Order: sequence, then structure tokens, then C-alpha cells
Amino acid sequence: MPDPAPFRALLGPAGWREGADAAGFTRDWLDRYGAAPLGVALPRDTGQVAAVMRLCAEQGLAVTPQGGNTGLNGGAVLSAGAQGIILSLARMTRILAIDPVEYTVTVEAGVVLAALHEALGEQGLTLPLHLGSEGSARIGGLIATNAGGSHAMAHGMMEAQVLGLEAVLPDGRVWDGLRALIKDNAGYQLRRLFCGAEGTLGVITRAVLRTRPAPVAQATALLTLPDLAAAVQAGAFLRRRTGEFLSALEFFPELGLALLLRHVPLPRPVETRGPVYLLVELATSIPGMGLEELLEAALADLLEEGSVTDGVVAATGAQRAAIWQLREELPEGQRREGAQIKHDVAVPVGRLPEFVARAGAAAADILPGVRVNPFGHLGDGNVHFNLSPPEGRADFGGLAGALSDAVYDLAVDCGGTFSAEHGLGQSKIALADRLRPGAERDMMRAIRHALDPEGRMNPDKLV
Amino acid sequence: MPDPAPFRALLGPAGWREGADAAGFTRDWLDRYGAAPLGVALPRDTGQVAAVMRLCAEQGLAVTPQGGNTGLNGGAVLSAGAQGIILSLARMTRILAIDPVEYTVTVEAGVVLAALHEALGEQGLTLPLHLGSEGSARIGGLIATNAGGSHAMAHGMMEAQVLGLEAVLPDGRVWDGLRALIKDNAGYQLRRLFCGAEGTLGVITRAVLRTRPAPVAQATALLTLPDLAAAVQAGAFLRRRTGEFLSALEFFPELGLALLLRHVPLPRPVETRGPVYLLVELATSIPGMGLEELLEAALADLLEEGSVTDGVVAATGAQRAAIWQLREELPEGQRREGAQIKHDVAVPVGRLPEFVARAGAAAADILPGVRVNPFGHLGDGNVHFNLSPPEGRADFGGLAGALSDAVYDLAVDCGGTFSAEHGLGQSKIALADRLRPGAERDMMRAIRHALDPEGRMNPDKLV
Repeated sequence: MPDPAPFRALLGPAGWREGADAAGFTRDWLDRYGAAPLGVALPRDTGQVAAVMRLCAEQGLAVTPQGGNTGLNGGAVLSAGAQGIILSLARMTRILAIDPVEYTVTVEAGVVLAALHEALGEQGLTLPLHLGSEGSARIGGLIATNAGGSHAMAHGMMEAQVLGLEAVLPDGRVWDGLRALIKDNAGYQLRRLFCGAEGTLGVITRAVLRTRPAPVAQATALLTLPDLAAAVQAGAFLRRRTGEFLSALEFFPELGLALLLRHVPLPRPVETRGPVYLLVELATSIPGMGLEELLEAALADLLEEGSVTDGVVAATGAQRAAIWQLREELPEGQRREGAQIKHDVAVPVGRLPEFVARAGAAAADILPGVRVNPFGHLGDGNVHFNLSPPEGRADFGGLAGALSDAVYDLAVDCGGTFSAEHGLGQSKIALADRLRPGAERDMMRAIRHALDPEGRMNPDKLV
Repeated sequence: MPDPAPFRALLGPAGWREGADAAGFTRDWLDRYGAAPLGVALPRDTGQVAAVMRLCAEQGLAVTPQGGNTGLNGGAVLSAGAQGIILSLARMTRILAIDPVEYTVTVEAGVVLAALHEALGEQGLTLPLHLGSEGSARIGGLIATNAGGSHAMAHGMMEAQVLGLEAVLPDGRVWDGLRALIKDNAGYQLRRLFCGAEGTLGVITRAVLRTRPAPVAQATALLTLPDLAAAVQAGAFLRRRTGEFLSALEFFPELGLALLLRHVPLPRPVETRGPVYLLVELATSIPGMGLEELLEAALADLLEEGSVTDGVVAATGAQRAAIWQLREELPEGQRREGAQIKHDVAVPVGRLPEFVARAGAAAADILPGVRVNPFGHLGDGNVHFNLSPPEGRADFGGLAGALSDAVYDLAVDCGGTFSAEHGLGQSKIALADRLRPGAERDMMRAIRHALDPEGRMNPDKLV
């Protein structure tokens, strides 16, 4: 019988919550998942995490690590039937060291990304990871889900920023891999394996991350294009022309923009309407590079050859913010429209037009009139292929499952993945079992069982 | 009793070598390791690799995958007492696809890095991985050892270039993870785990790699500095000032240069002698960026504040090549001097001066007069802390083991690693058992056993 008393004694009232006091930790962001835990542990340091893990081992309890609880797939709350605790890193928020010579930062896992951006900015540094939830998402969760965002095309996902990790293993032992090293090939790359492991191998408690000199100049444009194929070609052209400076290439369709402007009163930066828009951003940490001129010259060539039909380069910081706001609030526009189905998939960049066309046709076959809003990261092929019901209808009429299956199947059929940057959590576990190659599934099961033989780490997630 | 007949029948005379015909495959690059194998398999495609692996499974044979056989630690040849085969990828050398829109290339594992550079160059693309052995090293081996080189500070190690992998598992099953995706978070990052696994989990047969637009301009300088601490500070300064363009920061001491010039007649590019030299390179794929002016302005400031005592910026391609030649042939100078001990370690960049000072003092305590030649990659803290005997002596007088132990211990004590970019192979296996944190060793053993329960994949390597 699980006994909360030792947790209460270990952690005190600030570090252990039960029942109503645990609200805010037990359900996921979208309020779709979350069984009641024995309690929520809020340790204040690695030693307390280890002690909590030992107590769970003694009592045979499951452990679900939780960062900012911003995940969309229910990965950071308990699955139905699991008997265990939530281990929140929300009190481990210290930035331990910023080293401007090494370009590293050492943090506790509970540091919020926006807070880290602010602290780094004061030293002229940046961590090139930007996503919508950065005001709540915590570093440990960003590592555990191998977060992506809009700058992954230039700087890689979270895994590319991780130099060293400290984690507490299922039996309570502390793994000290907190080394500030780019090159560290002393056996398997455990630091990489923990990225995207969604808390199934242990609890990340501290990390050393790479930083870079902060940008001092940016140039941002919004383009209108005749179709997605033109956008892919324009992206390849911009890579050649703007090289090291190209930091973001985001795309969205007219439908997404129209839904947003229907619900949120914002100006249209470009006069010519879609069907496709491309947000382009260049950034540099070097003064005097003339990014605007570089971007304008490239756009002039694209306009002249007709692959871009209209475009505007932001002339002020306010214009730049207005362009980004369209991209960042796109999901909010669709949310306010009513029912929706979200998909986080990726395909090879060159096959984006094929995927979007085929998935759109398949969705329309299943539910005529369904509204398709594919947007995302052109630079890395990650598309949020989100759906709204036909105009005037409140729901998908029981076809949501069939629609999702079609989208995921086609992503895989186009050489892509059914899970790009949001992880699997609980919501994609059956999907993963269906679509993962058998050899891949077997390897993942074997690794998980090898490192957590009792199966107590975040059960019913990932594999 | 192992039976070569099925291998002969499967692979034919071009694909199976025994006895004297296997020379060139069975001993390592430095001729220090390599037990006699039953034979060397040279399959021509993934299907044949899988068939070879099934034969090995049937006969209970060990399998050591081999690429270009350029490794320095005996990882690609059989260990003493192992009964098995060498599986060479040397006949799988096809470049399957270069995609200039996606910036990807798909290759068989046996492609030689220099050949890939050439093919990519013809399309205006580059793979930012450069190392001394690129004329022989093959992609599969570069992945299996997670190769580093001189551009890892800017672009990461080999793992950062890998998008997708195909590998044959110990039981002969083919894992198809050959996806051209930056974002692919559908469970554990198996593609990362195979990087640096040194052939212990399976045989890499194909890979999709990221490419980038090829540089169209470079600016290269060689600087003289008063000490290594000044070099570290200069490196941090250059990062701030030259931002996205900074592609290499290599350092070496006066001793290394003197040994090279003693044995190879080359000009000195800078008049002022060390003690420390720094090679700085900027690169860009954008025309007209004025890299030389940018580098010269930064150097002028460094000279004025006295942290750099002398410097020259290459004015021609020939001067640039001459500067790089000094860095690249540095190991050759020391080799020609006679006996040497090589160490491939890394420490956090900021602790390089401390490590070099302490390790130098410790070495001199053990063997007075020992000549210390620490050189390598200032941008990532990877130092090849190589030793020559005291002037006029032919060997280390039986102290090589004590000297190496001191160097490795101090690297770890300075927050570093005993293995940065060369992998472990056979030569560092005992060292790894001694210096690896216990939790790390246990996780590695568990992973290895989980994926290769019979222990037939490259035994006595890695862990």
C-alpha cells in the first residue's frame, strides 16, 4: 500500500502536495490526460530528487517527471491505472553559472526557457531555441522532449544544445554527466539518448548547454507565394543566397491567416493574398552586415523570376514583431474557431508539397469540406497539419480518428515521421506501435527495459 | 567449428578474403592491434550485409565492422581471442542521391569522406567535417566513432550531420531509419545512439547526412600569443566579433612547430615565436562579406590590447594552404622525431590553460625533460596532449603508462573526458573502466547487452 508519509517527512509542506493542493500538476495542458497521483513531489535539489526516487523504488511507485507541464501529448502526467507520483522540477530553477568565455550555461532542470533567455541576454548570449511555450516550458522538459521550434533548421533541436547532463536514475543513483564538452566520445552518447526519452530513463536534474553570441541585427520578411512548391524552391534559393544568416523559414496558408484575422484583429502586412506565406528571418551577431540589403536583393530576384508574388521586409522592430505575431498566434486563431485536430509531423523538405496535397485530398475524401491549415517550419519539413471542421459545423462528426490516421500514414509514406517535435507522450503511443518499424520498436523496448527493468519510469509513454 | 564455406558461397571471391588475401584489413592503422579473423567479408549491398550477419549469428561468430581502418585505437580490428570476421564496407561506396533543395546526401557507409567532399563540391554543397584521414576514412566509420575534427566548434561532430541511418542488427534484421529529417522525435534517438557506438550495436549500411551551401570565401590567420590563457580569451573575443563566420580555432605550441620544421622544410608564416600559436579561420557561403577586413579589424584590436603579439592574415590561397599545412602536419613532425605518446582528451575551453599547465607539470615530475606538445581544437577544448621523450633520448624509459595515467586523470579532474574524438576501441577500454562514473558504465553495459545479448558485435570494444 503506497504511503505518502515518508514523502511528507522528506520534503515538508513546500515540497509535497496531495489532493486539491496538487491541482495544476496532475492534468495536462490541454486537460485531456492525468490520473490522480499519490502526490506531487517538488524537490529543491538533486539530493532530494535522489531521495524521492529511492522512496519510490522502495514502494514500487511509478514516477512521472514534469517540467512546465506544457506538453501537448500527456507525457508529463500520470497515465490511467498507474500508481505513482509526479516529480516536478518547478522548484529547481537556479541558473548555476553563465560562462561567456566557454559560451556555456549550467542550469537546474526547472529553469523556465524565457528566464534563461533573459539572463543570457544580459551577458550578450543566446540559446537558439524559440517556441510558443517558452514562458512556461522548463529546460528539463525541453530536453526530455527534444524540443524543436522555429530555429532548429539553423541550430538543431534541443539535443544540439546539450553538452552535459546530470540525471537521477530509477534506483536513485545520480549519474554525473555534467561535463561542459562538445567532444566527449567515451562510449555511448548517453547525453543524446536522454534527449527525447520523455522521462523514461531517469530524471534530468541539471544540464550544461551551449550558448552563442546574441544577435545584434535581424532582417525579417513576409512573402506571398503561388504554392508550397514555390515556397520550397524559394527556401533553397534563400539558403544559397543568405547562407550563415538564415535563421528561420516559417510557412502558413491563407486559411490559417484568415482564421487568425477573423478572431484576432491584426493588420495584414502584405497586400497580395496567399495561397502560401513564407516568413524569412536573417540574424547575425556581427554589427554592420547589411542584412536588410542582403534580404531585399534576394527577394528582388525571387520577385523578378515570379516564384514570389509579393513581399515586405520589416522596416522597424514593431513591423518585425507584427510579422512574427501572425505566425505565433496562428494556432490561437484556429483554436478560437472551434473544434480542431492537431498533427505534428515532418517529411523531407522536398516532399512537403506532395505530402500537403495528398493529405489534404485524403482528408477531403473522408470529410468533404474539412478545412486544412498546414503550417510550420519550412526549413526542416516539420508541418503542423491541423484541421478544422467544414465551415459552419461544430465538430468532425466522429471522423477525427480516421482523419488523423490518414495524415499520419501519409507522413510516413512520404518518408517522414508521425512525431516531429512534440514527442509521443500518451496520445501517440498506440500510433507509434502501429507505424514504427518493428526493429525500431524492439530496440526501444530493449533499451527501456535495460535501464528501467521495473518499468516504473513514466509508464505508458514513449514505447 | 567456424566454417568459411557459406561465406565463400555467399560472397564469391571478390567479397570474401582469407589468410594472406585479407592483409590490409586485419591489422589496425598503427599496427598495434588485430587478431586473425576467420575471414574478411566485403558485401556489396545491405542485403549481403544482412546475409553475412545471419551466417555469423548461426555460427556464433563475432563481427567487427570496418570502414577505412584509419582508427587510432584498434576499434575496427579483431581483439585477441575473439573468433569472428571483419565486415568491411569498402565495396559499398555509392553516393545514392544528392538533393540540393533539401540539402541532404544519401550514401552507402563505405563512401570515403574526400570522395563525398568532391561530389558535394560539384553541386555547391559541403559537409562540414574535416580531419586528417579524410582521404581514407569512410562515412560508416566516421559515424561509428562520432568523428570530430577541426570544424566541430561551429558545426558539431558527425552526429550533428546525421539525419537518418540504415543499419543491420546483430540478428541480421535491417533497421530502416533512413529518414531525411531534422526533426524526428518518435521515441529514443536511435540515430544518435549509433553515433559513437563503435560497431557494438549493429552495422551501419547507409546514411542520410545534412549538407550546407559550400563556402565561397575564407579568411585565415595565424597568430602568436603569449600563453594559452591569452589564446582562450582571444578565442572568446573572436567569437563575439566574427560570429557566424568563425569556423575554426586551432592551437599549437612552439615545440610542435619546431619539431615539424626540424623534419619538414616549411616556411614560418609569422616572425615572432610562440609560445602559443592560434590558427583562425572565417568562412562564408555568401559573396561579398569582406571576411578579410573583418578578421583584420579584430586582429588589430587584439594586437593593440597586447593579448596577441604577432599575426598574419593569408593574402592568397597558397598562404592559406601553407598555414593549414603547419597545423595538419604537426603530428607528422612529432612522429618523425621518434617515440611519442598520443592522448586525445578534452576539457572545458576555459580550463584548457589549467589542464595543460598541470598535466605538463605532472609529466615533468614523472620524467624530467619530457617534451610536451599540446595542440588541437581551441574552439571545443579538444587537446591532443602528445609527448616526446627528453631531447636526445629514444624512449620513455618504461614510464609511458604512468605518463598517460597522469594525463587522463588530470583531464577528468579538470571536468573533461579521457576520450574526445578518437573513440575508445581496444586501447582505452581498461582506461574507460577505471575513469568512467559507475552509473555511466552500468548504463552502457545494460544498453549493449540489451541490443546484442550474445555479445557478438565488436567484442572487447567500447565497454
